[in-house]
Amino acid sequence: MSNSNRQFRLAARPQGLLAPGDLQFVETPIPPVADGQALARVRYLSMDPTMRIWMADVPQYMPPVAFGDVMRCLGLAEVMESRHSRYKKGDKLVGLTGLQDYLFIDGTENRPYQKVPPVPFMSDTAFLGVLGVTGLTAYFGMMDIAKPQPGETLVVSAAAGATGSIAGQIGKIHGCRVVGIAGGSEKCKWLTDGLGFDAGIDYKRSDWKNQLAAATPKGIDINFENVGGEIMNATLARMNLHGRVVLCGLISGYTKEQPSLASFGTVLIKRLRIQGFIISDYADKFAEGISQLGKWKAFGKLKDRETIVEGLEKVPDAINMLFTGGNIGKLIVKL
Amino acid sequence: MSNSNRQFRLAARPQGLLAPGDLQFVETPIPPVADGQALARVRYLSMDPTMRIWMADVPQYMPPVAFGDVMRCLGLAEVMESRHSRYKKGDKLVGLTGLQDYLFIDGTENRPYQKVPPVPFMSDTAFLGVLGVTGLTAYFGMMDIAKPQPGETLVVSAAAGATGSIAGQIGKIHGCRVVGIAGGSEKCKWLTDGLGFDAGIDYKRSDWKNQLAAATPKGIDINFENVGGEIMNATLARMNLHGRVVLCGLISGYTKEQPSLASFGTVLIKRLRIQGFIISDYADKFAEGISQLGKWKAFGKLKDRETIVEGLEKVPDAINMLFTGGNIGKLIVKL
Repeated sequence: MSNSNRQFRLAARPQGLLAPGDLQFVETPIPPVADGQALARVRYLSMDPTMRIWMADVPQYMPPVAFGDVMRCLGLAEVMESRHSRYKKGDKLVGLTGLQDYLFIDGTENRPYQKVPPVPFMSDTAFLGVLGVTGLTAYFGMMDIAKPQPGETLVVSAAAGATGSIAGQIGKIHGCRVVGIAGGSEKCKWLTDGLGFDAGIDYKRSDWKNQLAAATPKGIDINFENVGGEIMNATLARMNLHGRVVLCGLISGYTKEQPSLASFGTVLIKRLRIQGFIISDYADKFAEGISQLGKWKAFGKLKDRETIVEGLEKVPDAINMLFTGGNIGKLIVKL
Repeated sequence: MSNSNRQFRLAARPQGLLAPGDLQFVETPIPPVADGQALARVRYLSMDPTMRIWMADVPQYMPPVAFGDVMRCLGLAEVMESRHSRYKKGDKLVGLTGLQDYLFIDGTENRPYQKVPPVPFMSDTAFLGVLGVTGLTAYFGMMDIAKPQPGETLVVSAAAGATGSIAGQIGKIHGCRVVGIAGGSEKCKWLTDGLGFDAGIDYKRSDWKNQLAAATPKGIDINFENVGGEIMNATLARMNLHGRVVLCGLISGYTKEQPSLASFGTVLIKRLRIQGFIISDYADKFAEGISQLGKWKAFGKLKDRETIVEGLEKVPDAINMLFTGGNIGKLIVKL
């Protein structure tokens, strides 16, 4: 075990994609573990679009990361040494580990880290993806807000991403016609051939809006929206009366100075219901969600995929991959 | 009784406000009333912002009015002669009378006209306003979508209009802090001194956003939105987490080529629920709404006000008044 800790600290608020220097790579000594403290080695880091929001000085659902602070990040860490009553050596913990090699638990944390249960045939990384925050986001967005009914048409944007791919499959489990929007033929092929979506629309093709129309002959009842902007506008334009929009993300705007704008006119004329949604509001119900997602996965009804990048130093590039479409499924950095 | 009928027919789709010639003033002979038909004299015409939508060739909730057709309009008409089993002479009818002196009921109508019940101390025009479509819009938007709770803060835009003034009073009946946004000090004074709103914000004052902030110290829980654009954006910016938006109208955009745009970012971060809403969806429940509105009005809990313009030929100017802020309360043209 090293006695120094490599960390990424926030040094500048990015303009657009992350640039070198926005995150400062530093090495700090690890203090000895005292009573009530624990030290854990970070094994996996979860790359999530919301990290880009946390880096920006804009109104948001948690405080923006301050300059000089270790960059906030979800991850999975293994306890190496513990003098904390809650944790013992070997425990695998999920929570906000930060972008660093070691998580030092000093006992002042507001919320405990969640222990990964030993589930046969389930990889640890599943607890960052399909059984983690991204899977839970899909679960509660679909089950609590969209409430899909058999025969309805569901359109998911960023459909080949960690959340979109699960949301679409939950739609299939409930008997929906499911159309995914993603960038590139490989992703679209995975949606249909790998996950059983009824159609995959490649928004990089010039005729994608016609394809979306052809794939939704009965209009759209539910939009699980992760992207915003032009993709959202095209989807809203095909919504049926009284359709529901689960507003889960607006990733197309996260790297822009000016957010993607939209007209509320369609919302009015079509009497749509739009519900903005952040997974942290469902923290009290995570156990229910993990249990159901785990059953679906165990019975082969839910497939997940990961894109693994190796090495802490690759994190800035990995974050940018989320916005340039580089990953399929859950993007994870392995340390 | 004249044997000719003056009508406004749609001749051109307006750009911006109505211009002379958009509505063509014609005189047509009235055919004799045959079996199954009836003739009614239009007494009052209801001026509603949605008329401007009906005149435009844009996606909407009813077919746009076709060129050459009598312009669609809600009104109140009195039966002069009837050989129709449903109607008898002297009946007062509310429904789509069109912009004309006489309503000729030829028996092919999809929906019957509603008879105005004889209610003591209630003017006929109330059935176009507080007990008509505008009152019902406020009623169902508040009761079915907003569901106001005591102590919540409600902000209503176009608050001195026919719908907004009723929506705000329904908020007061339910114990809300009610803040209305309107144009001009006269309207704002009426909101507070006449209707009991807690504050009236004059959006024509340069410091109106500061006033809105001062009037909503606990943020905003419910937005009953009639206007859109800059006024809606300023309201959304002060919404509390999990706030509700009743999207009833976007009048600021009806006379523009480009609709007012907004960012869905606030909707996501604040987990707002936005529900688009058109009163025609509630047609089956109108009796319930009229009954409750009538009780509130009879017990003095609901005050209404009318701006009356006289003469069919004044209709184009009256429609424009809706968009230039010329009316307080319900705008009606008396024939």
